[in-house]
Amino acid sequence: MLAKRLENLHPYVPGEQPKDRVYIKLNANENPYPPSRKVTEAVTEAVASHPEKIGLYPDPDANELRSAIAQMLNESGGVLSNSSASIPFKVTPDMIFCGNGSDEVLSFVFYTFFDSDRPIVLPEHTYSFYPVYCGYYDIPMDRVPLKSDWHLDTEKMLADANANDSCTIFANPNAPTGIALSRDEVAQMIRRAPKDKAFIVDEAYCDFAEESCIPLLAEFKNLVIVRTFSKSLSFAGQRLGFIIANPELIKAVFTVKNSFNHFPVDFLTQTAGIASCKDWAYYGENARKVKAERESMTAFLRERGWFVIDSSTNFIFAKKDGLEGEKVYQTVKKAGILIRHFSTPGIEQFVRISIGTKEQMDALKEAMKDL
Amino acid sequence: MLAKRLENLHPYVPGEQPKDRVYIKLNANENPYPPSRKVTEAVTEAVASHPEKIGLYPDPDANELRSAIAQMLNESGGVLSNSSASIPFKVTPDMIFCGNGSDEVLSFVFYTFFDSDRPIVLPEHTYSFYPVYCGYYDIPMDRVPLKSDWHLDTEKMLADANANDSCTIFANPNAPTGIALSRDEVAQMIRRAPKDKAFIVDEAYCDFAEESCIPLLAEFKNLVIVRTFSKSLSFAGQRLGFIIANPELIKAVFTVKNSFNHFPVDFLTQTAGIASCKDWAYYGENARKVKAERESMTAFLRERGWFVIDSSTNFIFAKKDGLEGEKVYQTVKKAGILIRHFSTPGIEQFVRISIGTKEQMDALKEAMKDL
Repeated sequence: MLAKRLENLHPYVPGEQPKDRVYIKLNANENPYPPSRKVTEAVTEAVASHPEKIGLYPDPDANELRSAIAQMLNESGGVLSNSSASIPFKVTPDMIFCGNGSDEVLSFVFYTFFDSDRPIVLPEHTYSFYPVYCGYYDIPMDRVPLKSDWHLDTEKMLADANANDSCTIFANPNAPTGIALSRDEVAQMIRRAPKDKAFIVDEAYCDFAEESCIPLLAEFKNLVIVRTFSKSLSFAGQRLGFIIANPELIKAVFTVKNSFNHFPVDFLTQTAGIASCKDWAYYGENARKVKAERESMTAFLRERGWFVIDSSTNFIFAKKDGLEGEKVYQTVKKAGILIRHFSTPGIEQFVRISIGTKEQMDALKEAMKDL
Repeated sequence: MLAKRLENLHPYVPGEQPKDRVYIKLNANENPYPPSRKVTEAVTEAVASHPEKIGLYPDPDANELRSAIAQMLNESGGVLSNSSASIPFKVTPDMIFCGNGSDEVLSFVFYTFFDSDRPIVLPEHTYSFYPVYCGYYDIPMDRVPLKSDWHLDTEKMLADANANDSCTIFANPNAPTGIALSRDEVAQMIRRAPKDKAFIVDEAYCDFAEESCIPLLAEFKNLVIVRTFSKSLSFAGQRLGFIIANPELIKAVFTVKNSFNHFPVDFLTQTAGIASCKDWAYYGENARKVKAERESMTAFLRERGWFVIDSSTNFIFAKKDGLEGEKVYQTVKKAGILIRHFSTPGIEQFVRISIGTKEQMDALKEAMKDL
């Protein structure tokens, strides 16, 4: 009854959402702070003054939202937690594409740029949805192991990309390690990679780092940057992601979108997304709080003999000799806190801990203090 | 820079949304009535009492919404405008899949059930997104011309499906003709079609008709019914569609969804969708008003020499000898009303008129009275 292509599918597994009790959720890299009051006010106002818009097709291209995103990037400099970040040109709305979460956006990116006749280059450990899209669209993969210090093996990735004339994709900062390449390191990579092949940098966690690759768009026409509202913008529930790239590439992604679903971003999500962009300073403040808690938790664990990778994200990736990740996960779950543990070979010793509020992290420290 | 598969894409073109003035929109088969007040209240209440849910991933499977849809179908009998409709078994939530509009749902259906090594059978004139999905997923098509009376050529469709062991898809009522096969006619088709191939009936407009094919699910394990909230449930702005089928097929569609986007239906859409289902009686009343206006408009045009196909939907498909569809479209646009005209060969003489409120239809009658 089913199409043969389903044999290639290995669906993504997100962080669990158990309902047996109320947990402190530190397992899905969500933002512990609520959305801006301006966002909830915008939604309330929209349904009060324009209820009929629930019944009418939304703007298929989300143009007002694209403008609001461009303005946020220009005003904030592209890294919400870093007030000295800046972009040396003006981001324009025609450089932006919006979709139903960065997961849908990434799916369109895979479809638009990656052929089925040669492997794409990606790190062995990175966002675990990338291999799932490759299964969905029958795209071969060249998964390059991380170096022993958990950094990307950029030399091997480049050598492979050039050997096969391949596209490249990775998350920067990377997941689940939390390690960021500097913008200069990424620039060096793109400069040496195939010029006519898309080079994708997934900046889902960039607002918790120091640098964005957005300024590199001035130099590289094959650079495609993917962003999400889910993490720094407290918007995981409303599903909104976007691309920043040169307008010619954006046009191609629109063609793909219009061949899949003409209206991927609904009325209330466009409304709430616009309000989020306008209050970006609030989210920047929250991201700075997350960074402070991240440093505090890193120090806490290191004092207790843990190996903790320096993180540029809203989570940390940590392990302790003689302690299985599964065991850590179970111990803190009993204390009413969810963190993430992966059974993927090579990283099964680690746990990934999303950074919450001070109160949440204090509870976690209490639960982990004797581990 | 772009993947080769983009050469197969011929994106869907929806009804226009011009911004040069305020139009009466009768060109996208939207519902002229606003959503239930209970829907806007549910949204307002959700952001007031649970703003944090905007920042947390939504239920990936929309389980409460699936239950609400099942309950709506069981209580209403599956055809909102027909109070004597009934379903002779209980629709259960495991028979329901929800997605980001029926466009996304249809895309998943094409991916899940249609192979690339044999053509699917579909009518030449039907929902114009079907050929677009075939381009997206590289699925060959066998487009069977309509009969001279604009009805489906069910005999030819069946002969072709059996000759190639093919899947079948059509909209019922069909678009843009508005003609419905009776449930008995569909049952006869499925009975004679390949038993192990999915048979898809897109019931986007079914709430404006008399019969649904839902009762046939008891007999046919290969029947997949697609529905949308966009038409009868005044929900086009919020993007919600669903499938009703046997639970084994639903499981397969979930696998596909989880390989594309784990969370396709956002928090507020789930909230608003649940509230919509609970007030289905309000939408049933609106659908009956639409039906009354449809009959009135049909009579008005026939009195003036138009050929109008008997419609089972919220639109009518009509033409008049010696009058080009394009001309009709332009004339009523000058009067501030948008209707739809297709340049597709074979139907270019027709216009498709969405049915609005009595006031809107009176304005249209005034604009068309001298044509």
